[in-house]
Amino acid sequence: MAIITFTSDFGEKDHFVGATKGAIYSEMPDVKIVDISHFVSPFNILEAAYIIQNAYNSFPKGTIHIIGIDSEINEENKHIAIKLDGHYFICANNGIMSMICSEIAPEKIVEINIHDKIQTSFPVLDIFVKVACHIARGGTLEVVGKTIKEIKPIKHIMPFVNDDKTQIVGSVIYIDNYGNVVTNIKKSFFETIQKGRAFEISARNNKFKKIHNRYSDIVNFEIAEDKRHDEGKGLVVFNSGGFLEIAIYKSNSATIGSASTLMGLSLMDNVSVSFSTESILPRVE
Amino acid sequence: MAIITFTSDFGEKDHFVGATKGAIYSEMPDVKIVDISHFVSPFNILEAAYIIQNAYNSFPKGTIHIIGIDSEINEENKHIAIKLDGHYFICANNGIMSMICSEIAPEKIVEINIHDKIQTSFPVLDIFVKVACHIARGGTLEVVGKTIKEIKPIKHIMPFVNDDKTQIVGSVIYIDNYGNVVTNIKKSFFETIQKGRAFEISARNNKFKKIHNRYSDIVNFEIAEDKRHDEGKGLVVFNSGGFLEIAIYKSNSATIGSASTLMGLSLMDNVSVSFSTESILPRVE
Amino acid sequence: MAIITFTSDFGEKDHFVGATKGAIYSEMPDVKIVDISHFVSPFNILEAAYIIQNAYNSFPKGTIHIIGIDSEINEENKHIAIKLDGHYFICANNGIMSMICSEIAPEKIVEINIHDKIQTSFPVLDIFVKVACHIARGGTLEVVGKTIKEIKPIKHIMPFVNDDKTQIVGSVIYIDNYGNVVTNIKKSFFETIQKGRAFEISARNNKFKKIHNRYSDIVNFEIAEDKRHDEGKGLVVFNSGGFLEIAIYKSNSATIGSASTLMGLSLMDNVSVSFSTESILPRVE
Repeated sequence: MAIITFTSDFGEKDHFVGATKGAIYSEMPDVKIVDISHFVSPFNILEAAYIIQNAYNSFPKGTIHIIGIDSEINEENKHIAIKLDGHYFICANNGIMSMICSEIAPEKIVEINIHDKIQTSFPVLDIFVKVACHIARGGTLEVVGKTIKEIKPIKHIMPFVNDDKTQIVGSVIYIDNYGNVVTNIKKSFFETIQKGRAFEISARNNKFKKIHNRYSDIVNFEIAEDKRHDEGKGLVVFNSGGFLEIAIYKSNSATIGSASTLMGLSLMDNVSVSFSTESILPRVE
Repeated sequence: MAIITFTSDFGEKDHFVGATKGAIYSEMPDVKIVDISHFVSPFNILEAAYIIQNAYNSFPKGTIHIIGIDSEINEENKHIAIKLDGHYFICANNGIMSMICSEIAPEKIVEINIHDKIQTSFPVLDIFVKVACHIARGGTLEVVGKTIKEIKPIKHIMPFVNDDKTQIVGSVIYIDNYGNVVTNIKKSFFETIQKGRAFEISARNNKFKKIHNRYSDIVNFEIAEDKRHDEGKGLVVFNSGGFLEIAIYKSNSATIGSASTLMGLSLMDNVSVSFSTESILPRVE
Repeated sequence: MAIITFTSDFGEKDHFVGATKGAIYSEMPDVKIVDISHFVSPFNILEAAYIIQNAYNSFPKGTIHIIGIDSEINEENKHIAIKLDGHYFICANNGIMSMICSEIAPEKIVEINIHDKIQTSFPVLDIFVKVACHIARGGTLEVVGKTIKEIKPIKHIMPFVNDDKTQIVGSVIYIDNYGNVVTNIKKSFFETIQKGRAFEISARNNKFKKIHNRYSDIVNFEIAEDKRHDEGKGLVVFNSGGFLEIAIYKSNSATIGSASTLMGLSLMDNVSVSFSTESILPRVE
């Protein structure tokens, strides 16, 4: 049974998500539809790219991913289907796929060309569903589009490194449900530049000299539980997706605050890492 | 395999949605349950009517739609099941179905009368699930209720037209995830009154003389992309459901603003269309 | 076909929920996954306990419930799997299960010990999914953990009663989608203490002398509908889960207000019941 995932900026109040699922089940009653997210901020390509990158490869190979963000077709915004890493992606050619494609080369990209037959003001429902069901039935990409070589890139998916490699300047690309602040600095990239040197991470006027693997690493378990004051403490981790993340232990934006609210960090803000010019010092813990 | 859709004002934090699905699967393990929306504003019949009208007919004929809005039973609020357009709807008789029924005549309406056997303070879980599973097993409506002729109407589903047909006065009936403002003026209705005349649409102090078919119709693609300033521009479209909608190009209520926030338009506000008394002028584009 | 429910504080914007479902389907393509809630307030054990208690037993026996709240493993926060009432629960040993366990004795509790083989910073995806699929395939709890006798308790799940049993002092443990205020005073507990006596319920400066079974019990249907002013009236009910709840008829926090907003009631606020020292008076209606 084929799996189709569904990511959009539709929200879950309007009828858009339900109607799209109805269209899929009308065409393929036995498919399995799995929501990844419908709460992408409207038209926010970078958020969508981050979410889809972190979710897709938990699914089995052969899964088909519909991504409905800024998908109204016009002369600058075409529809594409991509085969990459054994998965299929259907979306507008607006940069959503450039984060994944910067790490893994696509096996095949087509620009969808079935629009002549379909007049629509709801392309996710009328076009993407058709393409997804075509693939789910075992159809090839060439039948629904013409092969192209490149997709549209997006900015801000790679951090900047200075010439003498003493500094990385990254950007905040996502703020998660806990208000934790995710940067575009990936662990593998960080370690390649670091080469074991000591470092200091700066985000506004907050400084960090360690990167943890677990949020609770900052808790001193030798102190009795009712005498600790760890909730609300800031720390830096590589999150489960491998991205450098500035976090608050047990944060809650509505109550004790979060990295975003307490440190005043927003999307696209800079987060920099300065490396010691001296030789090897503490490791990443 | 039967499909049961589920729409409510329960939100998705509380246990209500999960518990209802559990009750369905307990009775029919093989049914497919599809959420349409659980973020209808509490007790907002008109929002629910709009959502269900726009979602239901993407689903295959025979689909059963549970609608849990204001469904506590009392002497004025009975439960009904309706067969219409090959679909089944189970809800309170509180007006939710009057928008769909104003366009398509129901094949059958019953007032559900299985309550004698079931004591409940959670009728969606205890009554609607029972009725839905009965229908999914191929049962007839007559077994779970007595036939009635009419359902309770709601106001504001039809716009007003003046006697000499120079003006339509509609209402805002829905505000979508992008803050776009949806009126009760449908394309077919508009064109019947318009008869090709020029027109001016007024919503507060905003005026529009064109209706577009795509949001990006207002973009001038001859100008280089980085020199355009189209995001945030207002326009009027007939949306994918055929309703006249006042929109902002690439709107986002939280950032650049939306039709609702920028033009100060709220539910039930008036939107009027004045037709030229002169002869035929620009067409709807 | 096994059913796995999923409750968390992940929200539905981030990739966490989708990725977890992908991992389940990768391991067991034929399982049915049902969301209970992903909008538990971050790290709020009491909310999660309330939601899961009210949802789980609508599902068929044998259902497996994954609960991902505060599940990062450390020396004080171990992972457990519980068999109780024919259902399976997988969560951190942080008190979530103590509300259910205070009413129904667990059949089996194990502390999960498969972590040696799995390095993870996303334990719901890497550990809970593994355990859930193991159970879904018919595996026993002993294979994935060692039996333990007790779980960690949480506070505030039981109201306080004074020595001469003239007063119950309860707490607000949940605020629902309608802004209704749910206390930890259950109907059965209330009636055991009440023994038919008259009572007065106090929540801040609001007093109630009746408990209703339906929200619309306060409506006087003899008055014409357009002359009534019942929306916005306060009342007390035993809700569908059997908890004493302070409600507003047809409330909406965003418009007419709710019990929470209008009466200024928040999580953990006290709600007290004083019983008459005189003999039997009005019953609970």
